[in-house]
Amino acid sequence: MNDLITQLTMAPLVASVVGLAVAAFFYFRVKALPEGTETMNLIGRYIREGSMAFLKREYQVLAVYAVVVFVLLFIAFSGEGTGLIAGSCFLLGAFLSLFAGFIGMKAATYANVRTSQAAREGSKPNALLTALDGGAVMGLSVAAGALLGLGTLYYFFVNDPHLATVLHSFAVGASSIALFSRIGGGIYTKAADVGSDIAGKVVEGIPEDDPRNPGGIADNVGDNVGDVAGMGADIYESLVAALVAAMAIALTADPRHIAGLFTKVPAGVDPVFLAATLPLFLAGLGLAVSIVCIFIARALRQNSPAMVLRLALIVPSVIIGIVSFIAMPMLGVSQAVTYALAAGAIGGGIIGLITEYYTAWGPIRKVAEASKTGAGTGIISGLSVGMESTVASLFVVAVVGFLANLVMPEGMGLYGIAMGAVGMLAGTAIVMTVDAYGPISDNAGGISEMSELGPEVRAITDELDAVGNTTAAIGKGFAIGSATLTVLSLFSAFILEVNHARIAAGMDALVLKLDEAPILIGLLIGACLPYAVGASTMIAVGKAAQAIIQEIMRQFNEIPGLREGKAEPEGAVIVDIATKAALSQMVLPGTVAIVAPVMVGFVLGPAALAGMLAGAVAVGASLSLFMANAGGAWDNAKKFIEGGGIEGHPKGSDTHKAAVVGDTVGDPFKDTSGPGVAILIKVMSVVSLLVAPLIATI
Amino acid sequence: MNDLITQLTMAPLVASVVGLAVAAFFYFRVKALPEGTETMNLIGRYIREGSMAFLKREYQVLAVYAVVVFVLLFIAFSGEGTGLIAGSCFLLGAFLSLFAGFIGMKAATYANVRTSQAAREGSKPNALLTALDGGAVMGLSVAAGALLGLGTLYYFFVNDPHLATVLHSFAVGASSIALFSRIGGGIYTKAADVGSDIAGKVVEGIPEDDPRNPGGIADNVGDNVGDVAGMGADIYESLVAALVAAMAIALTADPRHIAGLFTKVPAGVDPVFLAATLPLFLAGLGLAVSIVCIFIARALRQNSPAMVLRLALIVPSVIIGIVSFIAMPMLGVSQAVTYALAAGAIGGGIIGLITEYYTAWGPIRKVAEASKTGAGTGIISGLSVGMESTVASLFVVAVVGFLANLVMPEGMGLYGIAMGAVGMLAGTAIVMTVDAYGPISDNAGGISEMSELGPEVRAITDELDAVGNTTAAIGKGFAIGSATLTVLSLFSAFILEVNHARIAAGMDALVLKLDEAPILIGLLIGACLPYAVGASTMIAVGKAAQAIIQEIMRQFNEIPGLREGKAEPEGAVIVDIATKAALSQMVLPGTVAIVAPVMVGFVLGPAALAGMLAGAVAVGASLSLFMANAGGAWDNAKKFIEGGGIEGHPKGSDTHKAAVVGDTVGDPFKDTSGPGVAILIKVMSVVSLLVAPLIATI
Repeated sequence: MNDLITQLTMAPLVASVVGLAVAAFFYFRVKALPEGTETMNLIGRYIREGSMAFLKREYQVLAVYAVVVFVLLFIAFSGEGTGLIAGSCFLLGAFLSLFAGFIGMKAATYANVRTSQAAREGSKPNALLTALDGGAVMGLSVAAGALLGLGTLYYFFVNDPHLATVLHSFAVGASSIALFSRIGGGIYTKAADVGSDIAGKVVEGIPEDDPRNPGGIADNVGDNVGDVAGMGADIYESLVAALVAAMAIALTADPRHIAGLFTKVPAGVDPVFLAATLPLFLAGLGLAVSIVCIFIARALRQNSPAMVLRLALIVPSVIIGIVSFIAMPMLGVSQAVTYALAAGAIGGGIIGLITEYYTAWGPIRKVAEASKTGAGTGIISGLSVGMESTVASLFVVAVVGFLANLVMPEGMGLYGIAMGAVGMLAGTAIVMTVDAYGPISDNAGGISEMSELGPEVRAITDELDAVGNTTAAIGKGFAIGSATLTVLSLFSAFILEVNHARIAAGMDALVLKLDEAPILIGLLIGACLPYAVGASTMIAVGKAAQAIIQEIMRQFNEIPGLREGKAEPEGAVIVDIATKAALSQMVLPGTVAIVAPVMVGFVLGPAALAGMLAGAVAVGASLSLFMANAGGAWDNAKKFIEGGGIEGHPKGSDTHKAAVVGDTVGDPFKDTSGPGVAILIKVMSVVSLLVAPLIATI
Repeated sequence: MNDLITQLTMAPLVASVVGLAVAAFFYFRVKALPEGTETMNLIGRYIREGSMAFLKREYQVLAVYAVVVFVLLFIAFSGEGTGLIAGSCFLLGAFLSLFAGFIGMKAATYANVRTSQAAREGSKPNALLTALDGGAVMGLSVAAGALLGLGTLYYFFVNDPHLATVLHSFAVGASSIALFSRIGGGIYTKAADVGSDIAGKVVEGIPEDDPRNPGGIADNVGDNVGDVAGMGADIYESLVAALVAAMAIALTADPRHIAGLFTKVPAGVDPVFLAATLPLFLAGLGLAVSIVCIFIARALRQNSPAMVLRLALIVPSVIIGIVSFIAMPMLGVSQAVTYALAAGAIGGGIIGLITEYYTAWGPIRKVAEASKTGAGTGIISGLSVGMESTVASLFVVAVVGFLANLVMPEGMGLYGIAMGAVGMLAGTAIVMTVDAYGPISDNAGGISEMSELGPEVRAITDELDAVGNTTAAIGKGFAIGSATLTVLSLFSAFILEVNHARIAAGMDALVLKLDEAPILIGLLIGACLPYAVGASTMIAVGKAAQAIIQEIMRQFNEIPGLREGKAEPEGAVIVDIATKAALSQMVLPGTVAIVAPVMVGFVLGPAALAGMLAGAVAVGASLSLFMANAGGAWDNAKKFIEGGGIEGHPKGSDTHKAAVVGDTVGDPFKDTSGPGVAILIKVMSVVSLLVAPLIATI
């Protein structure tokens, strides 16, 4: 390996070490803060223990899964002589995900009660700071973990003929953990939310977060396991997958085309490896910029939280674009790379704003108005808002893809699309920080309510929580937009990889013509799968929520004095029900996602598998956007009514009750099935990429 | 043209003439039946006048559209020297659709009140017969119109170099009318249904079909314009599109591959034209078999209606398979064609049974049970049922495609897939008869209720109506399954046509590789469009329903004595509101469907357009199945509760109210947006096929 590539690879490694050090600093700073009253302490501990108990049991299930996959990979790749490498890299990719999830969630469960305490002391800036620092532990662990893992592997294997298998197995490790964490966490959080809402509010007439509701702890645990740990694994996977896609395209593309990417190749450097190193290098720059921006955001904590967080999401992308614009000519790289990166970053921001518009502005007023004539019309209205937003968002993704393709030299359009995805994800550390900030402040509000702190405390946590909801929408825009571009890139990388393997085996390259029967049949099979995962996750939430409702009603009936607030609810029982349900129900959809591409690839061959991926991305990208945004619209329409947005229809009115129905439907839509489907298409693509050499000759 | 091809072409022509004669016989037979009491007569007349008024105004809008498209086609194809031909064939395709819709709906609006009268006379067999005869007018007009039009054009243009343009323009005429009729009719029927349900039942506490409800007439008109005229145009289009797809593939496929289709080509016959004639011939056989089966079904009217109609749907397919098995060797054609046909016919039946299972059996009990804990859980349950059924149905379509491809000789797999679609649609005449029977008996029930006939009358019409709901599900299976296969075939025909034109222009054939950037970007754009049509049609229904609710409430407030049943409601005003809303709101989604492929084709070129069609079919097929079946499940879950299916939760209970919410959401899902999306993908494919020669060299 020559010097320049070594140097470029060091950038993400150094940035990740710094990132992890900063994460450790925040972790211990947050942990050292005061926890408030004894009740707060106790509730905080219940939530933390519940969350960690879920994580531990989830990790036990995943350990079994990891061992099985390790053995399978070991056997499958032993013919290629890379059995041990494939298995080990898979484990590393999985481990780093679990590590980031563990540390990040632990920090979040320290930060929530301490944010509540800062609010209790009357300091909004301190509350904001605590929630931000707690979120930054997750944000930095996720980005640094991804770059450290990929960077180290790349550093050691860059000259190894098995580099592709190394990178792809790492990505499969990252993806499959993300899939299970997202689905398992998603089922948990929404089963607890829907179950305790319906039982507590509707059946028993007790408000949300009421200390008497036995589901209260589970509901707060859900925010952590779903929106912190699940989301973290998801974003970690996104970054890994986008980088691997860009690297895989560079490593398998036609070298003559790659040459077009450089204005002047530095002496003694192989352009192929330079092109493969660039995504890592740029992501390293992105992490460095994000770390600086996190500190700037902290320094601005006296300002409006809404402004601080919004800047935190947008400014890093701008800076990364500028840095790239300066750095690329120095490396002899065409500015086309900067433009593709910028198209992605800007596109991600626009999708975020579209998401915000549809889930926080005019359209939610329409949904709220439609709820005046009942739940049915409210649901119809939310569904149409979700559909409209899908059209707008997906169209922007198409435009980003179009531009990223357009600016690139001939034959490198798909590398450009992959770079667009990298551009959307360059600010991962700070995007994830702000994402994790959301459930921390949500938890802080819940703890304040359950600890019966005064309304002035609740006012601070409510403001922080509301800001979190908006920024969550923007973060979701980056996530789904980048997922779609990443999948398109992975998909192309898969085909390149298949042909690479075929040529190596002395066969003709496969021309995957769109109008061939196997591809069209694959397209239909691919179109089924997102609905399969959507259905199974919706059913899982429904079942688990029913079990929780039964248990809550049992407690109210059988525990004397609970209704009057004189006895303690048995929150741990609910936590246990939700945990068991989530872990058992996540297995089926998770397995489908991993087994489907392997089956189709081995039985019907690479053409049908390519068709399947195309069908899955078209259906999966649109369906997940639809579910996420319809869910967001119903949620905020309900909040809009609760905030007095519709004159004469206050909280508790029939209109509000109708809106609550929408929110109930939206819960699994936006936080379980929608994200589950989005990650499904990534997992399938990554798995296909990994098995490409094995099925190439079928 | 040689003798054999002439003879084969005569078969569908003769069958259609016979079919039209039989339709005329049924029309006059039904019209001559007694109409019952004066009130029934009056209500029947209101419904008929409202329906025909809608159709007339719709036709005025469509006339403008047809003139515009005629002029555009005339200009666009004048360069090819086929401007007048393209325009005229477009008009013929459109006209035959309008003709069948007009005659069929008029017959249905005679049959409804006469079915009610037969029930009033106490004769279930006569009531069944009247409804069946009324439906058969539509069924026969639709199938005979399609075959007469296509057959005649084929007969005269078979040796003309512009045969392709002739067939494609005819199909565009058929498709675009179907699109507008389906969307316009769908908006009308569901706006009237949802509007009068909510206003009448929820707001004013008046049961459905209560004579005091001002929306009653509009609701019944809606059944006719949506489920009879709209459905008829849809099925007519399906048959035309499937035939044109199969013919287009035969006409553009590699002649060497086509030769493989024959065991022994009859002397002096061009195999290409024989292959192109087969679909028409087989459809003609299908029509002949259907006519016979309609008479058999009539003869069996003393038996249980459920059995008669079920046999009517399944037996014709079996007979057509047997006839084909005998006829193909006689023509020197490989039995592969029979197998592909049979795969389609059996697959269509299986999809029908899947649809029935998910919308009438176990799953609806689950939805009903989930409604016990509220509308939210009921909606979640229905959505997951819809998703599951989508997976099952689409998987069957994939299997049919796989088999139809597998049995074919090399290079003819796509012809096999097209033949699978023809197999699903061979029984069109009888499927549409049974489909139109549904709304006729639904109307008969409504008329009996509004005319305050006794419960014993209502018992007969209720039984007929219930059977209609089940058979509608089976019919829907044929419709959506065949639509998906047809679109895959049209899609392939489009690519063949593009390359045909390129080679004619001295250019290289286009290899549409799945991993090229323009195709992937097209895929995303294609994925947006079904959601665009879904959103706009949902919004249209919501808006129009709101307007109707306002008007009904105004009438109850302002017409003295209406509430007490002492004054007449002003039903015509509601009919007018629904008509205006449907006609104005159908324009946008309809235009999008027609303009999008033209725009993408001319601006981004044929590769992006091919990608767009692939994305649209993957998303559109799954989304329309999902919406149709979720809607069906909610509808029947509500009916299940009303029938006392859930002990202790009768009609009027909270559980029932929760189920009504699901039904309200399901109405536009299953009868407006779902069918609208299904037809969207067909229209886009047909339009692409037509413009293929114009954009081939871009």
